[in-house]
Amino acid sequence: MKKRNIYLSMRSPEEAKDIFFSSLNSWYMKKEEEIEVEDSFQRVTSQPVFAKISVPHYHGAAMDGVAVRAEKTFSASEVNPLVLTVGKDTLWVNTGQPLPSGFDAVIMVEKLHQLDERHLEIRAPAYPWQNVRKVGEDIVASELIVPRNHVISAYDIGAFIISGNFKIRVWKRPKVLIIPTGSEILSHKKIESLQELSSKNILDSNSYLLSSLVRQNHGIPYIHEPVPDDEGLLKEIIEDALCKDFDLIVINAGSSAGTKDITSNVIKDMGEVLVHGVSIMPGKPTILGIIKGTPIVGNPGYMVSASISFELFIRPILLRFQGMEPTRKNILRAYVGRNIPSRLGIEDFIRVNVGKVGKRYILLPLSRSAGSISTLIRAEGIVRIPQDKEGLEEGEDIEVELLVDKKDVEGSVFIIGSHDISIDILKDEAKRKELPLRISSGNVGSLGGLISLKKGYSHIAGSHLLDPETGTYNVSYVQRYLRGIKVSIFNLVKRLQGLIVQKGNPKGIRGVEDLIREDISFVNRQRGAGTRILLDYKLKEHGIDPQKIRGYENEEYTHMAVAVAVKSGLADCAMGIYAASKALDLDFIPIVEEQYDLIIPSEYLDLGVIKMIIELISSDSFKERMHSLGGYDSSFSGRLWKEIDG
Amino acid sequence: MKKRNIYLSMRSPEEAKDIFFSSLNSWYMKKEEEIEVEDSFQRVTSQPVFAKISVPHYHGAAMDGVAVRAEKTFSASEVNPLVLTVGKDTLWVNTGQPLPSGFDAVIMVEKLHQLDERHLEIRAPAYPWQNVRKVGEDIVASELIVPRNHVISAYDIGAFIISGNFKIRVWKRPKVLIIPTGSEILSHKKIESLQELSSKNILDSNSYLLSSLVRQNHGIPYIHEPVPDDEGLLKEIIEDALCKDFDLIVINAGSSAGTKDITSNVIKDMGEVLVHGVSIMPGKPTILGIIKGTPIVGNPGYMVSASISFELFIRPILLRFQGMEPTRKNILRAYVGRNIPSRLGIEDFIRVNVGKVGKRYILLPLSRSAGSISTLIRAEGIVRIPQDKEGLEEGEDIEVELLVDKKDVEGSVFIIGSHDISIDILKDEAKRKELPLRISSGNVGSLGGLISLKKGYSHIAGSHLLDPETGTYNVSYVQRYLRGIKVSIFNLVKRLQGLIVQKGNPKGIRGVEDLIREDISFVNRQRGAGTRILLDYKLKEHGIDPQKIRGYENEEYTHMAVAVAVKSGLADCAMGIYAASKALDLDFIPIVEEQYDLIIPSEYLDLGVIKMIIELISSDSFKERMHSLGGYDSSFSGRLWKEIDG
Repeated sequence: MKKRNIYLSMRSPEEAKDIFFSSLNSWYMKKEEEIEVEDSFQRVTSQPVFAKISVPHYHGAAMDGVAVRAEKTFSASEVNPLVLTVGKDTLWVNTGQPLPSGFDAVIMVEKLHQLDERHLEIRAPAYPWQNVRKVGEDIVASELIVPRNHVISAYDIGAFIISGNFKIRVWKRPKVLIIPTGSEILSHKKIESLQELSSKNILDSNSYLLSSLVRQNHGIPYIHEPVPDDEGLLKEIIEDALCKDFDLIVINAGSSAGTKDITSNVIKDMGEVLVHGVSIMPGKPTILGIIKGTPIVGNPGYMVSASISFELFIRPILLRFQGMEPTRKNILRAYVGRNIPSRLGIEDFIRVNVGKVGKRYILLPLSRSAGSISTLIRAEGIVRIPQDKEGLEEGEDIEVELLVDKKDVEGSVFIIGSHDISIDILKDEAKRKELPLRISSGNVGSLGGLISLKKGYSHIAGSHLLDPETGTYNVSYVQRYLRGIKVSIFNLVKRLQGLIVQKGNPKGIRGVEDLIREDISFVNRQRGAGTRILLDYKLKEHGIDPQKIRGYENEEYTHMAVAVAVKSGLADCAMGIYAASKALDLDFIPIVEEQYDLIIPSEYLDLGVIKMIIELISSDSFKERMHSLGGYDSSFSGRLWKEIDG
Repeated sequence: MKKRNIYLSMRSPEEAKDIFFSSLNSWYMKKEEEIEVEDSFQRVTSQPVFAKISVPHYHGAAMDGVAVRAEKTFSASEVNPLVLTVGKDTLWVNTGQPLPSGFDAVIMVEKLHQLDERHLEIRAPAYPWQNVRKVGEDIVASELIVPRNHVISAYDIGAFIISGNFKIRVWKRPKVLIIPTGSEILSHKKIESLQELSSKNILDSNSYLLSSLVRQNHGIPYIHEPVPDDEGLLKEIIEDALCKDFDLIVINAGSSAGTKDITSNVIKDMGEVLVHGVSIMPGKPTILGIIKGTPIVGNPGYMVSASISFELFIRPILLRFQGMEPTRKNILRAYVGRNIPSRLGIEDFIRVNVGKVGKRYILLPLSRSAGSISTLIRAEGIVRIPQDKEGLEEGEDIEVELLVDKKDVEGSVFIIGSHDISIDILKDEAKRKELPLRISSGNVGSLGGLISLKKGYSHIAGSHLLDPETGTYNVSYVQRYLRGIKVSIFNLVKRLQGLIVQKGNPKGIRGVEDLIREDISFVNRQRGAGTRILLDYKLKEHGIDPQKIRGYENEEYTHMAVAVAVKSGLADCAMGIYAASKALDLDFIPIVEEQYDLIIPSEYLDLGVIKMIIELISSDSFKERMHSLGGYDSSFSGRLWKEIDG
């Protein structure tokens, strides 16, 4: 019988942090070094920096002109001009030049009347120290330039040099060793081509994610090569690292509650496991330990878990090494746009899209899968659901920690509804034109998109709903579901829908009439999806009972998802768009050309970001890119073809 | 007669930018390179990145447990448990492992009842694809990972690797050559000790400031050694740089309207001067030009001018090279706390302190001197006064561009009033304790401080106002000037006031009675300063007519400023604190121990930041540091000695 580790003593994140941090010696955390001033940009001072010399360090001219002795000019006036002899009464000086000895004021060039090479006339007196930058006028020797624990800016570097500080004492940047573990982990540097990748291998992406996060927090990362599941080997590597003066060791993966619980065994044998298991999701299997005074973190293997564990436990340590505090989070209150369930006893970290729709900020949850890398790159914020709360309800007003600037949230457009590849192209076109536009898209099907618009949770619905009665798209649905809202319908693309089948069509599928064959398994789109409605319409046309189709109840949410199901052999056939079959090198049996529209409440048409979108989809460059994908007709893209008064 | 350059065709900043940017070829601005994914952190994509493989790239277990064929488990229930044989009906799998061929679901370990080594019992059926991470569940091959012109994050790097993108196309980082010019400019690397510095030399701080700003904007800076005023030499260096593939050349200084207008002559001879003179202050003498297609900027010599010119003209170019837009500024509306005059026809850039006092944001202007480096490191914001506006009036509500986070502004405390070195120590103590506290101090004298409190422009007044009638400090002034406001008076320090004289006291000054001597020149503090009031009190005690003192009308605003005046020989004597004379190695004749207090409206005492300050000044570490400076008695520091009901 296999032994399985159970999280007997799971800790809350706060408990875990306290236990871990209090085990670290404060002297361990603070190592200073002295560096050249020119290398000190963005380092953190470990000592206050005081001016060693005054700035300026001499009396200098603050203007171009002539130096004079003020009291010798007191008689000058409009009616009694005074003539000065250059070389005797006065000397030429330029801005910044030292005041010649014996002089105490500068008369600017604009106030001089030059009589000849040697003689000048002035018509007003100078007062003492006029137009003179006096010693220490800006900074006096011994004055504080910057306090300790201060992040050094470009300006500080200028001030350091000018005040005579050429070497600066700063906190040492912590050295972090990242050890990827797991026999299945493969470095991308070890493969020549992607073909070498099999289901036995997982590419080591976490080490590079973590090393970039270390760098972002001013640490110095080192990545070890992947270590197979071998306790002895891992111990040797750690032993070696302890001699090499690493400040922190991070062991990635190998920490799930599976059989390969090598990390905790090794830490237990060599030092102390302080925490094993934290009541957070994702990130639960985090291990925090210490070996001979060196902190060691067993980071979970899934990328989202690894990054949450980094944020909670590694980032604060890296900052503490450098005398920095974690920056306070940017918090925004937003309305929950969809129910988000959560288990009691676990603190849930949910990545969300956040946008401003009308006057309200709206958040929509992304996938919660700990392995969903795409959520890391798409989220604008994180919502934390505390241990004692059973989820969030639609319409609730809660706090979001922003991962982007608040201004990005305000420039963010929510396109919720049916999925189409044109939305990806749109995102890239926006960046190509360097537009300050951030597009968040949610795939909930065409009907879901209309309902989202109705509730005020999105700016735009992407929809391709066929009205079987009239043969037209979207209009009758808008009239039914968006009653009372004035909307404008723009065409995005026309596109081919058809049957996606295995390469070479091995089952010889000819059309929807074959879907009821005993030897054919199907994968469907979810209820409310335009493609589902189109399929049902076609089935009805052919008099086919949907219940006779094997797999009619298997639902997926995107064109790509059904194409993947076919590609990987889960199903023989699916209904979807040509572009999806082409992307995965599958075969395609065209059924119909349908219309995909963007439905926009007319009140939003004046928004800058919405105008940008209309302009983008009307542009030649967008149209050409869509056309070149195949299966798309972009000749009507961007055309306003219907306004409905609601 | 010397020829002097006049800004005949001064341009507005917008005109200047347009002329400069439109002269640059767009192909020149966009150079791509392909780099390893692990080096791509914070670089900017020049092409969109699409997934080359799906993620996950195989069907894998999403849980620890056993793999099954779902349809073989349909009969299992609480009343009819099903027994599975390991190796035949089922196989053990760990999270992340590939699903063994022929299986389509995973039952998690918690749902299993192990009968013996080979037999398991289940009491519920599995459904197809339960607990399975399907191919492409997260990312489908061909899907957009990030668009072009995107700053690569740590997460993106993880997603690049896992989706098979090991090389990334990015914009090249621009190479910038910085050439400091001027025969007086000296590199700090060329001197062994600060003693070598004379009034003939200025340390080259601008090149390091500019190179850090280039780095901050992701460019690669190179600093040339300082070039003396020699057109031929400068031409050679530029000629050489043009061959070496620099993307931008910055010539610093040598561009004032003085005699050394070498930069513009050189650019004119070698290429084209596009703009000479911009209607901004500071930054007016900026030169923008182009030589053989390479942009070249003549940056003004004063540090504040140099940095404004960088922000306006160099930063946007560096970002454009890399496909980035300038981030939008953080704007805050704040009340002007003091009149700020401005000339018509010039756009004024004024650095300001910004803080939240009560419910309002308040801004206070810092020194406007183009040479004031200290303003660069102290400012929280910049106010732009447009060309057509004659200054700002106290109480006006205007826009400030923040240079720090809005949260820093909210954690900022304004201590306005008399200057004391203890305020510097306080700033450093706050950072030593890693407190989220930002202290902005303004030196306007003790009375000025009370008036600032009264107007609601500051949190704390630093004051040492002696009431000659009673011999007590501050109370009678508070009663007179802060009528209607409930305040608490805390002692900050007691300190020695006396006469600051030249080292060795060459004029043999014994006390205030000597100030009327013919051979003694004095430098005074401004009206309203506590030290001025103290002096007048002492003069009266001795029956001395202030008008008989030579220099009584020469006013300076800080202890350090009067000490500097003595140090540099502008005056023989000044009234000030012991610490100022010690800092500049001057002699000191003690007159009186006085009391320096912090006066705080009682309504602010509950603010976290104010509590921190009281705690800091009561701490042993603060008291010891003040004591060790000499001339200070810190035994009462932090003591609340008076509450006044207003």
